[in-house]
Amino acid sequence: MNEYESLIRLRRPPSVTAWASIAGKKESEGPLGKCFDLTEADSHFGQMTWEQAESELQRRTLNLLLEHGGCEAADIAALFAGDLINQCSGSTYALRGFDIPYYGIYGACSTFAEGLELGVMAVCGMELPRAAVLTSSHFSSAERQFRFPLSYGGQRTPNAQWTCTAAGAALIEPQGGPPYIRGILPGRIRDAGQTDASNMGAAMAPAAADTIARYLSATRTRPSDYDAIVTGDLGIVGSRLLLKLMEQNGYDLRGVHRDCGAMMFDCKRQDTHSGGSGCGCSASIICGYFLPKLRTGELRHVLYAATGALLSPMLCQQGESIPGICHAVHFSYESGKEKRK
Amino acid sequence: MNEYESLIRLRRPPSVTAWASIAGKKESEGPLGKCFDLTEADSHFGQMTWEQAESELQRRTLNLLLEHGGCEAADIAALFAGDLINQCSGSTYALRGFDIPYYGIYGACSTFAEGLELGVMAVCGMELPRAAVLTSSHFSSAERQFRFPLSYGGQRTPNAQWTCTAAGAALIEPQGGPPYIRGILPGRIRDAGQTDASNMGAAMAPAAADTIARYLSATRTRPSDYDAIVTGDLGIVGSRLLLKLMEQNGYDLRGVHRDCGAMMFDCKRQDTHSGGSGCGCSASIICGYFLPKLRTGELRHVLYAATGALLSPMLCQQGESIPGICHAVHFSYESGKEKRK
Repeated sequence: MNEYESLIRLRRPPSVTAWASIAGKKESEGPLGKCFDLTEADSHFGQMTWEQAESELQRRTLNLLLEHGGCEAADIAALFAGDLINQCSGSTYALRGFDIPYYGIYGACSTFAEGLELGVMAVCGMELPRAAVLTSSHFSSAERQFRFPLSYGGQRTPNAQWTCTAAGAALIEPQGGPPYIRGILPGRIRDAGQTDASNMGAAMAPAAADTIARYLSATRTRPSDYDAIVTGDLGIVGSRLLLKLMEQNGYDLRGVHRDCGAMMFDCKRQDTHSGGSGCGCSASIICGYFLPKLRTGELRHVLYAATGALLSPMLCQQGESIPGICHAVHFSYESGKEKRK
Repeated sequence: MNEYESLIRLRRPPSVTAWASIAGKKESEGPLGKCFDLTEADSHFGQMTWEQAESELQRRTLNLLLEHGGCEAADIAALFAGDLINQCSGSTYALRGFDIPYYGIYGACSTFAEGLELGVMAVCGMELPRAAVLTSSHFSSAERQFRFPLSYGGQRTPNAQWTCTAAGAALIEPQGGPPYIRGILPGRIRDAGQTDASNMGAAMAPAAADTIARYLSATRTRPSDYDAIVTGDLGIVGSRLLLKLMEQNGYDLRGVHRDCGAMMFDCKRQDTHSGGSGCGCSASIICGYFLPKLRTGELRHVLYAATGALLSPMLCQQGESIPGICHAVHFSYESGKEKRK
């Protein structure tokens, strides 16, 4: 009956066998600072430009993933990678030195979940032995591309989010221990007419509500069936909106909802307003905080609903509103195989 | 032995059941002008800006695809779309009005092949009933983003390519008549150190040679086993380089190689120098020229190797060279099922 049956209930749930996360200085000073595999105090990552810094961040994260996974670049059959820099050049230039088949993807802050979904298709669907996902963001490369040059010193609005300097990477294999990916659901574009490029939470909340409600409805699960329903980067403003929108859909997310943007910083102390954002925000938190707890069983079911504001500065200047999207990935401590014959 | 066995020899080759192509005025005046489903003389496509024009081009192409496929938006389980505009906004804004689950992809001019590969994974691998691929490019939105504002009137170099105003879309289903997709192979990033943003053919040729040689080697086929080996947008300059590189690899592509960039225009008469380029170039030619001939059997085997110059104006300004990528899709009149037990 449901055309997504093969996605939301994966017949052969793959295993996330390894992961890696690296974060910048400000992120290292936040509440999750201790979770990341590595942190780097030099925001230039030893490079000359912000864009090169972001590529270096991805490069280091990928090398760390290979180390954790006990494998080499040649063992990865397909890598899904992306970032916020135009032409996904953070990924492109990072991957130049690796001989890995590469699919470039763009989902703004939802990119990590988009990559996980496609990685699942490659591994479960196409029986590739190993797929990887890699995404990053960098405060300085994003800020000057999407808003103002840093040296301009523009004042941030109260609703604004802070693009995290962070990256996450994960390895997906057909066999392995927990965590498993039990289901995936691609997002649909939602646009509620929001035109303020400084309020991305509001632009993304409708997409998050759409995807989460569709996932819960299709799987006939309730929010309480999950230890956490984790959005990627709605921030404080967008999270409030999501809870309201879900309530209108008949779902109560209170208690179970977590947002990576809100988790990344101690927003008042660190002056990050509505919270963190960027492809690297939820990627690093999923890899640094949630996956380890899903490996040990401290968490058993996590619905990761990564949101992306498909913001184009050019289209915003032309008066357009900001479309949002949200991709969902269901992580579990259990493979689900034990329940079946 | 070959980790790509499941990709290069698809066990259940899906069918490309419908396609659509729309091209602009200059493209309509080229040698393939009669092949496209529709052509549009208004380069603004009735919109106010070039970016909105490109979205309208994608919107019309998607509607045409739905018409040709005899289906509705709701019937498409996943759509893989992308373009050259930053943040893939040509696709994002085009798809806002459609309730179709959407994966944003970026592979520069290789995007259509990348989308076809992921569509195959969705349909063959994940048993989705129907996936679609949609890509476009627009001369005016690309020119001002990647090179100079049009009104600047910059002189084009002899090696330069002309970004096509065109779009292509295809529908992939598990069952149906010819053409079938028999194999796919994702590309790896190749960078030969080329730094001239006006010579993308040279930046892409090494990636094309890498992917084509890997595909031929893995499938143990020779160039003569294909009616055509079609690169996407190497142009005249890049095509010459490809033939040389392939010769060094022990393959003779003469006679069998076609290039969409070289095919799109009568380059001398139309003053397009090295030829066409852009995500819409090979997309519209595959959909307008090759797929119809593969449906009737006039062509039986076509290896489509779409090339992308992962050019970032920002990184070029920083002195970086231009990485290239090439994704391969093997179309066939035969499903290949008849040969198996």
